[in-house]
Amino acid sequence: MMILKIGGSVITDKSAYRKANVEAAEKIIKTLAEVDGLLCIVHGGGSFGHIKAKEYGLPGPKNETSSLGYSIVHRDMEELDLMIVSLMIENGMRPIAVPVSSLRYDGRFDYSPLLRYIDEGFIPVSYGDVYIKDEHSYGIYSGDDIMADLSELLRPNVAVFLTDVDGIYDKDPKKHKDAVLLREIGTGISFGQVQNDVTGGIAKKFDSMMRMRRYVSGGVYLMNGKHPERIYDIGKGSFIGTVIR
Amino acid sequence: MMILKIGGSVITDKSAYRKANVEAAEKIIKTLAEVDGLLCIVHGGGSFGHIKAKEYGLPGPKNETSSLGYSIVHRDMEELDLMIVSLMIENGMRPIAVPVSSLRYDGRFDYSPLLRYIDEGFIPVSYGDVYIKDEHSYGIYSGDDIMADLSELLRPNVAVFLTDVDGIYDKDPKKHKDAVLLREIGTGISFGQVQNDVTGGIAKKFDSMMRMRRYVSGGVYLMNGKHPERIYDIGKGSFIGTVIR
Repeated sequence: MMILKIGGSVITDKSAYRKANVEAAEKIIKTLAEVDGLLCIVHGGGSFGHIKAKEYGLPGPKNETSSLGYSIVHRDMEELDLMIVSLMIENGMRPIAVPVSSLRYDGRFDYSPLLRYIDEGFIPVSYGDVYIKDEHSYGIYSGDDIMADLSELLRPNVAVFLTDVDGIYDKDPKKHKDAVLLREIGTGISFGQVQNDVTGGIAKKFDSMMRMRRYVSGGVYLMNGKHPERIYDIGKGSFIGTVIR
Repeated sequence: MMILKIGGSVITDKSAYRKANVEAAEKIIKTLAEVDGLLCIVHGGGSFGHIKAKEYGLPGPKNETSSLGYSIVHRDMEELDLMIVSLMIENGMRPIAVPVSSLRYDGRFDYSPLLRYIDEGFIPVSYGDVYIKDEHSYGIYSGDDIMADLSELLRPNVAVFLTDVDGIYDKDPKKHKDAVLLREIGTGISFGQVQNDVTGGIAKKFDSMMRMRRYVSGGVYLMNGKHPERIYDIGKGSFIGTVIR
């Protein structure tokens, strides 16, 4: 049983507002259609989420600007999600979108509608989304946050993150020619020791993966979404990527 | 305080799969942007919903075909909904899609996420949608069903249905030149007495409106969505349409 997140950077051009990378998404979904035991898919926002969120002050206090941003960011994320869901349908999968902005929230999301779809044999698709955090502020719940929640709820064997890098290195491979891809990271290693920050955003993901691993018996995998076929090698010596156990 | 449903026949070409009537939708949303006290919008599916639902056996028993149909119909409805939501954003409104397929359901939907958005000043948008009815079957929850639920929950002053006809007539206006538009239908009148069935589908809507009226103090209105500006005349003698009280 596997849960999987497709990074926004893989399926969008992060620099151009609302520009999807359709070919990359097609390649990923075609590959995932052949994966057994896939329970659900989560995806990030890339240029459908981050650009307008920042522009409209999300996450942040409630005001006229952020309220409009709330509507816009969710609309844009739905548009990106429609691409993923449509590709899944074309590839014979049974997707159903379950955005967290539609779920009950009181400090925690009530994922029961999503869990019900898994029980019914659907593959629910959720994504980084806006939500009403508290009386004063709107939040953004990231795809990584959702993955952490679902790990705890579903206790999958494997959790996979498709990103735009091959994995986690011992130092920044852009700066150091001798940087080594860390195939496995075990207990007791902190990100400080690992040093590297390939994309600048991996530190946060690394932390989140480290927290998830206690719920995921077979390991939390980070791999390159441009080479989705590598997913078939999970558990084999030939796998290219990083597993955190 | 008003709740309003836009009929699928107004914003789509019912005979052509997934063909939207963008101009009609634009005209409606521009008009609604000027309406005070609009709590939420519901819309039907037209050719984004009914054609594939029928083709894939929805509503109906769970099987391979209907399961695929479930994914397809929801995806298509989301696409139609994105048009409505986008037009609302363009017109300065604060929409947020809340599909019933994402809500908790155990014989009744738990609308609390939608109600919360109303409290927060958003205009939630819901629509006719698929849902898991019970152990053996998938259901289709229509826009009219949602309107009935929201009437009970919200007790709005006014509920409005935008359809493709001017209102309810005393007999079929296509067959009878002397058919008279019924401006008001009060207690004690049944559809048998009203006789007419302009679109063939009005009988069911009439029943549903008759059931709703006890929750809607100011009346349940049926009017022509091709002339959305008539909504400004609600409560005036010049209003063209039918009110059920």
